[in-house]
Amino acid sequence: MRESKPNFVFPFPFMLFITHWFLLAFHGSAAESSTYIVHMDKSLFPSVFTTHHDWFESIIDSTKSGTLGHSSIQPQKLVYSYSQAMYGFSTVLTSEELEAVKNSHGFVAAYPDRGGTIDTTHTFQFLSLDSSSGLWHASNFGEDVIVGVIDTGVWPESKSFRDDGMTKKIPSKWKGTCQEGQDFNTSMCNFKLIGARYFNQGVIAANSKVRISMNSARDTYGHGTHTSSTVGGNYVSGASYFGYAKGVARGIAPRARLAMYKVIWEEGLYASDVLAGMDRAIADGVDVISISMGFDGVPLYEDPIAISSFAAMEKGVVVSSSAGNGGPDLGTLHNGIPWLLTVAAGTIDRTFGSLVLGNGQTIIGWTLFPANAIVENFPLIYNKNTSACNSVKALSKVAMEGIILCDLVSDPKIVIKQRRFVKKASLSGAVFISDQPLVNEGYARYPSIVISAKDAQTVIMYAKSHRKPTASIKFQETFVGIKSAPAVADYSSRGPSPSYPWVLKPDIMAPGSNVLAAYTPHTPAAEIGDNVLLPSDYNLLSGTSMACPHASGVAALLKGAHPEWSAAAIRSALVTTASPLDNTQNPIRDYGYPSQYASPLAMGAGQIDPNKALDPGLIYDATPQDYVNLLCALNYTQKQILTITRSGSYNCAKPSFDLNYPSFIALYSNKTRSVVHKFKRTVTNVGHGPAIYRAKVTEPKGSVVTVSPETLSFRYKNEKRSYDVLIKYRKYKKENISYGDLVWIEDGGTHTVRSPIVVAPRGIV
Amino acid sequence: MRESKPNFVFPFPFMLFITHWFLLAFHGSAAESSTYIVHMDKSLFPSVFTTHHDWFESIIDSTKSGTLGHSSIQPQKLVYSYSQAMYGFSTVLTSEELEAVKNSHGFVAAYPDRGGTIDTTHTFQFLSLDSSSGLWHASNFGEDVIVGVIDTGVWPESKSFRDDGMTKKIPSKWKGTCQEGQDFNTSMCNFKLIGARYFNQGVIAANSKVRISMNSARDTYGHGTHTSSTVGGNYVSGASYFGYAKGVARGIAPRARLAMYKVIWEEGLYASDVLAGMDRAIADGVDVISISMGFDGVPLYEDPIAISSFAAMEKGVVVSSSAGNGGPDLGTLHNGIPWLLTVAAGTIDRTFGSLVLGNGQTIIGWTLFPANAIVENFPLIYNKNTSACNSVKALSKVAMEGIILCDLVSDPKIVIKQRRFVKKASLSGAVFISDQPLVNEGYARYPSIVISAKDAQTVIMYAKSHRKPTASIKFQETFVGIKSAPAVADYSSRGPSPSYPWVLKPDIMAPGSNVLAAYTPHTPAAEIGDNVLLPSDYNLLSGTSMACPHASGVAALLKGAHPEWSAAAIRSALVTTASPLDNTQNPIRDYGYPSQYASPLAMGAGQIDPNKALDPGLIYDATPQDYVNLLCALNYTQKQILTITRSGSYNCAKPSFDLNYPSFIALYSNKTRSVVHKFKRTVTNVGHGPAIYRAKVTEPKGSVVTVSPETLSFRYKNEKRSYDVLIKYRKYKKENISYGDLVWIEDGGTHTVRSPIVVAPRGIV
Repeated sequence: MRESKPNFVFPFPFMLFITHWFLLAFHGSAAESSTYIVHMDKSLFPSVFTTHHDWFESIIDSTKSGTLGHSSIQPQKLVYSYSQAMYGFSTVLTSEELEAVKNSHGFVAAYPDRGGTIDTTHTFQFLSLDSSSGLWHASNFGEDVIVGVIDTGVWPESKSFRDDGMTKKIPSKWKGTCQEGQDFNTSMCNFKLIGARYFNQGVIAANSKVRISMNSARDTYGHGTHTSSTVGGNYVSGASYFGYAKGVARGIAPRARLAMYKVIWEEGLYASDVLAGMDRAIADGVDVISISMGFDGVPLYEDPIAISSFAAMEKGVVVSSSAGNGGPDLGTLHNGIPWLLTVAAGTIDRTFGSLVLGNGQTIIGWTLFPANAIVENFPLIYNKNTSACNSVKALSKVAMEGIILCDLVSDPKIVIKQRRFVKKASLSGAVFISDQPLVNEGYARYPSIVISAKDAQTVIMYAKSHRKPTASIKFQETFVGIKSAPAVADYSSRGPSPSYPWVLKPDIMAPGSNVLAAYTPHTPAAEIGDNVLLPSDYNLLSGTSMACPHASGVAALLKGAHPEWSAAAIRSALVTTASPLDNTQNPIRDYGYPSQYASPLAMGAGQIDPNKALDPGLIYDATPQDYVNLLCALNYTQKQILTITRSGSYNCAKPSFDLNYPSFIALYSNKTRSVVHKFKRTVTNVGHGPAIYRAKVTEPKGSVVTVSPETLSFRYKNEKRSYDVLIKYRKYKKENISYGDLVWIEDGGTHTVRSPIVVAPRGIV
Repeated sequence: MRESKPNFVFPFPFMLFITHWFLLAFHGSAAESSTYIVHMDKSLFPSVFTTHHDWFESIIDSTKSGTLGHSSIQPQKLVYSYSQAMYGFSTVLTSEELEAVKNSHGFVAAYPDRGGTIDTTHTFQFLSLDSSSGLWHASNFGEDVIVGVIDTGVWPESKSFRDDGMTKKIPSKWKGTCQEGQDFNTSMCNFKLIGARYFNQGVIAANSKVRISMNSARDTYGHGTHTSSTVGGNYVSGASYFGYAKGVARGIAPRARLAMYKVIWEEGLYASDVLAGMDRAIADGVDVISISMGFDGVPLYEDPIAISSFAAMEKGVVVSSSAGNGGPDLGTLHNGIPWLLTVAAGTIDRTFGSLVLGNGQTIIGWTLFPANAIVENFPLIYNKNTSACNSVKALSKVAMEGIILCDLVSDPKIVIKQRRFVKKASLSGAVFISDQPLVNEGYARYPSIVISAKDAQTVIMYAKSHRKPTASIKFQETFVGIKSAPAVADYSSRGPSPSYPWVLKPDIMAPGSNVLAAYTPHTPAAEIGDNVLLPSDYNLLSGTSMACPHASGVAALLKGAHPEWSAAAIRSALVTTASPLDNTQNPIRDYGYPSQYASPLAMGAGQIDPNKALDPGLIYDATPQDYVNLLCALNYTQKQILTITRSGSYNCAKPSFDLNYPSFIALYSNKTRSVVHKFKRTVTNVGHGPAIYRAKVTEPKGSVVTVSPETLSFRYKNEKRSYDVLIKYRKYKKENISYGDLVWIEDGGTHTVRSPIVVAPRGIV
């Protein structure tokens, strides 16, 4: 079982004065009892009870009376009862009590509560969203679509959550509310933020002595404020991160409505709370759920996100989730769940800051130093004594004399040392040379800039050929249109999915690196030197946590434009229209392996393309029963299946691994290094009328791919057609993973329907 | 002769990369020749020449031909010719050439060019300026009054110099212009900034190899931008110094027009350039001249400001000048010139930042840390190991653990050491305890705050009595209405005037400490740590340089309301209505001697009161001949007088020390420690009609003051009445300076006309 970790790249060791929840997540109370999540069979609900809740309480009562007797101090019996996201309850039990529960009538499964892990705005432009046409136009910016965000809460006073321009009417189906709590009252909700609830009984059950520092839906962390404003934040002029990325911030679906379900706490993150949040979101009537966190190393039937998103899927709710930040190793992904959308993170075509040489040459670099520091016409120092940047003593001697140029070093550890030395020496200015994306796209705590090795040649030439070279570092500058972008972020978790490797995960990639979105104003967003922590109402954050809400926003727009589409249809549209090419029209690169192109195990079908997804031509749909057929084909017990499906209304008559998924993955055995895999797919014509599609295959290296038929003729809209794909693979040189695609190209039309194909070894996960 | 020094308190050792003009001011060229200022007798202008310029050139020609022969490379002969501010020219001469000039017909005087020294907005509120009534109303905010500012130039792009709301018509009398130059073109002037000229031939003459870094009226320093926007800057919303003093910035006369005469250069400050700037300002037709600089230790007849402001006074132009920053010692003042206004600097009723204890108590302190650093609910550390704040090692151990409270120390040197140690230790937060104004009102390079010794008791009590004390430092907060204010700033130079001790100088006090006004955007305005320099469009500066433009602005308003008043009348109105009381209705205190009240040698008549000055009741007027009578009474030669008066049109028939000044100073001999001094004064009734005034005297300790008559009856407006004052003083205990006042109180009216009286020893200057 993999250890849990956050899907969010921490910029700073900021947690100094903050009780950090990651450390607490697994600290239960010292008692021998702990919280369990108990699944019950809904179809066995005894009619003697009026509510599910009554039933669950009676089970606990009967269990506890046997062990605790008539103790006058009864601990809170029920942590939560669940009826939407799953069917059952969570409660604190001793091992004896657990056994008693297991013997109850209707019992399906029980497992301990567990800790989870958590994983923004020129991006709308980068994604070609445009007011006058395409998806924004077709969906009216996501008007009235409701997105539930399962996260750390929300900062309701952020300008991103103002409701200017929103229709002043809550959709009639909305059952949500704005829950009162510490520093949070109902008046903080409006026609943009239409709901805000919080769920921390799981945290409290795990540690009854815990003091909840912010006992309401208010965000004290920033993560939830950032993700929810990325999905559907309103227009905010003049938003920036200390002057960087300045402009009109907005969510991907700026007219969508938002509801926050706070389940992540400084005091801990527990499955029982996540289930409670999801349960309520479904009951409230959200259209899309955005969940930027995941549970690593758990089977589907114990994964709260897998369980609860099945119920959401049944109701047509799209669940969009983050792949995790465990990259670049293969098989690090979480949320690789067949019935939801799994999103990888990519870079943006944007950089910040420049170096201007005394001769007027401008070199665009990377700096996020959080102030407009004056580094103007300073001497540019490049000599043997200092250029290694490996001695505080040598650097301190020239600290106030100008800008130090540090040598290119390839070892990332040495780069980090250079930074540390430069920081200690309190230089007036420093220029680093690096081609390492993680190093480059970091924050700066002192006036400095990173430039590429290629550009460094120009600077070194200038420094060597002039008697008194000078330079200026320009802060608070933003450059867009940078090539090449996107690339897969190195941290983005890679497939195959440990919980179910037979569907290709992640599904797609969305912008996740240095995304600008709203932030909590009392949380450090930058640091100067060692001791100056600075807040910002908007923050640049990186992670699949930031990519997920981009996809959630697009899903909301699609839901607005195509309210009749199922969750599977929306995912299909996103997958088959995603782009495998970057802005140089070359294949998207993988920053985890800088010399390589990205495989679908890194980015799924590629970069999300909202406008194309509006009109995908064909879709690969799936019904709840299709997913049940998949569960039936697995080696799951009937009760394990029931934890997910909640009642016996599904059957296992047609078990099948062959889900009607818009992508293909064939896993070969590590022994023979070969595989023959047959897939059957059914596509629905969602184009405007008759159409003929012809298959075009790019075969993964080492494989032969046969598609039959090779032509699909549709006479009318919504007609379905099926086809088979046969992949025969035999060991290809040293390649571990090989990939290609199947594209259905419309005759004389504009639609191309692309599905990535991956052949990978079975042994990765 | 006192050494020159700036009238401007430097906040930072910022000059690292900037060639600093103070160091260069006295570096002439190495040659034996140097620049001389030559005064000529205007009445002896030979009719053979068509212009004064021709005459001056012919003198130089005849002088130089003898020594330089027909050298083909003639150095620039004339640095400037002057016809307004003085009569004569400046030129580069060898000692032999100088002798030849001295023998020329019409020669009056010659002396070497010399280096000078230079001396900001809730202040309008603090001065009770109000849109609906009083002086702003009466003068229509100084509409169409033209203020010439003699300074370091101007940053024309500053929002303070926009002309929104200004009448779009230049006054017909205006002969000024916007002079083209490096990075400055005529289009940068508008209906607010109607003129901008620059004068650096004196700098160049002193060092022919000098490279003028900004050869135009553009300010690269910030001083001139600050002073001119203080006089007459337009309304600018959201102005602040890194969030401090935030609000709508505006000049004291927001509808006055501004003309900049740049005479102060990074490359040097020379009398010849100052004379040229003054000369042109008078010729252009300014109404008020604001000059925040001075020349120390020069007699009136060699002081370019004394000389040029005489000519200005003759034309009714009010010259407002800064007293200097040489305090708190007595006799440190410059610009103590009988015919201009000399302004001392006072504090403002404003402070910044607070310390909030864990128990909720808020303590208002002082911090200008230039960022909204997060110092929230940090542990408050107060223990023996760290509270001395005298060990970097001890402090570094707890640097990131919380806020350190440093002990109160009385020695300013130890306070400075505490700061240095705290800076080196990179603390997350620090609290200093101090009652020393200079220490308190400084800048902070790290997150810290200064609190008073009295408030410190509360903090220490809290820290000792709580197990886990915490605190927060709140930055970017502004508190106004702080008591008591104003106080005389410690740095403000004190009288008596070395150049003429028989008039009481300074005249009045105006706000000078931590004044917010416009600034040059590429000049450091703050620093974080050792290496981060930050710019700001608005800066908080302190000095008599900042007090002077407040008085200049009020003078402009008075000029607008009473265009018929002479410069002496305007000064009289300012002096007799100034307040000797602070906002607690106690006498104004002297921060130079914190336990004492301020004497008139520190603050003149007291804090400027614009609205009262609008309607002073009586004024003490003076004609140019009155000042000449004073010069005649001095031991000056006829030629020395002529350097000031420029032509023989005045006579010395009635020499008199007894200038009709609105204040009294009697100097006693150091031997006898006694004096009997008789003054004669004439007041003009500028009230609305008949009025009776009665004298009320508060005698300086050790003196008997007799006023006769004790009642003055006026039958009509503009009627004059004279009276005598006899001061008899005999040694009073150990008191060195004693002071009181004479107040003429209107019978049944609202006017009170107050003149301070000082008795001081002769030996101070």
